[in-house]
Amino acid sequence: MPNIKLVIEYDGTRYHGWQRQPNLPTVQGALETALATIAKQRPTVIGAGRTDAGVHAEGQVANFNVNARLPSAAWMRALNSLLPEDIVIVSAQKVSSRFHARFSAVRKIYRYRILNRRYPPAIGRQYLWTVYSPLDIRRMKSAAKVLLGKHDFSSFRGSDPSEDLARRKKRSAVCHIRRLDLAKRRDHLLITIEADRFLQQMVRTIVGTLVEVGRGRLSPREIPLLLKKKDRRFGGPTAPPQGLCLVKIFYK
Amino acid sequence: MPNIKLVIEYDGTRYHGWQRQPNLPTVQGALETALATIAKQRPTVIGAGRTDAGVHAEGQVANFNVNARLPSAAWMRALNSLLPEDIVIVSAQKVSSRFHARFSAVRKIYRYRILNRRYPPAIGRQYLWTVYSPLDIRRMKSAAKVLLGKHDFSSFRGSDPSEDLARRKKRSAVCHIRRLDLAKRRDHLLITIEADRFLQQMVRTIVGTLVEVGRGRLSPREIPLLLKKKDRRFGGPTAPPQGLCLVKIFYK
Repeated sequence: MPNIKLVIEYDGTRYHGWQRQPNLPTVQGALETALATIAKQRPTVIGAGRTDAGVHAEGQVANFNVNARLPSAAWMRALNSLLPEDIVIVSAQKVSSRFHARFSAVRKIYRYRILNRRYPPAIGRQYLWTVYSPLDIRRMKSAAKVLLGKHDFSSFRGSDPSEDLARRKKRSAVCHIRRLDLAKRRDHLLITIEADRFLQQMVRTIVGTLVEVGRGRLSPREIPLLLKKKDRRFGGPTAPPQGLCLVKIFYK
Repeated sequence: MPNIKLVIEYDGTRYHGWQRQPNLPTVQGALETALATIAKQRPTVIGAGRTDAGVHAEGQVANFNVNARLPSAAWMRALNSLLPEDIVIVSAQKVSSRFHARFSAVRKIYRYRILNRRYPPAIGRQYLWTVYSPLDIRRMKSAAKVLLGKHDFSSFRGSDPSEDLARRKKRSAVCHIRRLDLAKRRDHLLITIEADRFLQQMVRTIVGTLVEVGRGRLSPREIPLLLKKKDRRFGGPTAPPQGLCLVKIFYK
């Protein structure tokens, strides 16, 4: 059975996240519905990252196994003609049967957009988080440096009500952050994070913590202690979802 | 009676343009409704540029005369608390009684955003025009150079059904374009135009014409002839409104 890899862009505003849920619009659900129309069967679409409600993607990756034998370009055309306009297939290709969008991924890039000014935005509100108090970017950059490299990110892990605690404790919270850049463009601040893996809400908690540093409520020197605690209660607040975008996923 | 100058940002997606129209949502209408609530009277809000339906603004300017004596900062706070979230007051200040948002303006900047790639966008669709065929930016830049300076832009003037032809013929179509930049950022093309004045749909017709050049359907050498014709039928097609944004207005 052919294994098809998709690269997907979506505007997460209207969706309750990636993962299929009964009676709620989700990206996985929309893809599976469109596929069912084309393939006359309903294959499960495996996504690389289960983005939360309101989170966007420029480069989500998914794969599915299906009996229908269509050329790759036809999958792209057929899906794009059936999908709502806030979900777009960027590319479709046949891959090895061993390819698994989630388990084969080796690195991911997320980007978070902050608007830092005194008044709210009218344009692009669905793609950013507005922080009204002034941010000290230099302080934020030195806090970001501390997070680079391999650490246990338990203090930056969101709670997943569907996951039982005993199971979670067994799973490692060690992630390797290879890149954590802050770039200011006029009143926009773009935070780009690249790592081998991400825990639930990890990017949003890192962003929330960096903003605490930028506001002067937390010192960059406190970040190592915060990491050592390995306890979510010591991490900063979770930044809202709409500023977040899954940019790119790398495979071996 | 105090004269208040406003700088306004808006997302034009939901609006039938700037200008008040009975029973249709417009930006001027929304502002006048909010003002009426604050001032217990309904002053006319004079806008600098009457943007079309779907066109956005980062720096629209307007003014109104009102009897209520509120400090400038209070106007901003009160209006922002009453306006829908896609219209935001960026600043409010008391100005001389001679200030007129439209007639006192000496220069304006508009920006147009094109997405140039083979597949449609999911993110930010309401803020750009997608051109699927490859664009030759160098050709577009040399066409843009021809348009710089003082010209009669009759070939780039949209039709306004409310304006009678006899009156239009008397009004000059000469505009002075001081800047016409094309900047490519990955698959986005930003076109920035600064001029002393703009005719109806002039930016969108210039963009439509430049895209014809970029596609190879028109040569940069044909632009001078096109200007000489002084006839809209010789200009390029009108680019769609949602890529356009009124960025800034300058006053003496």
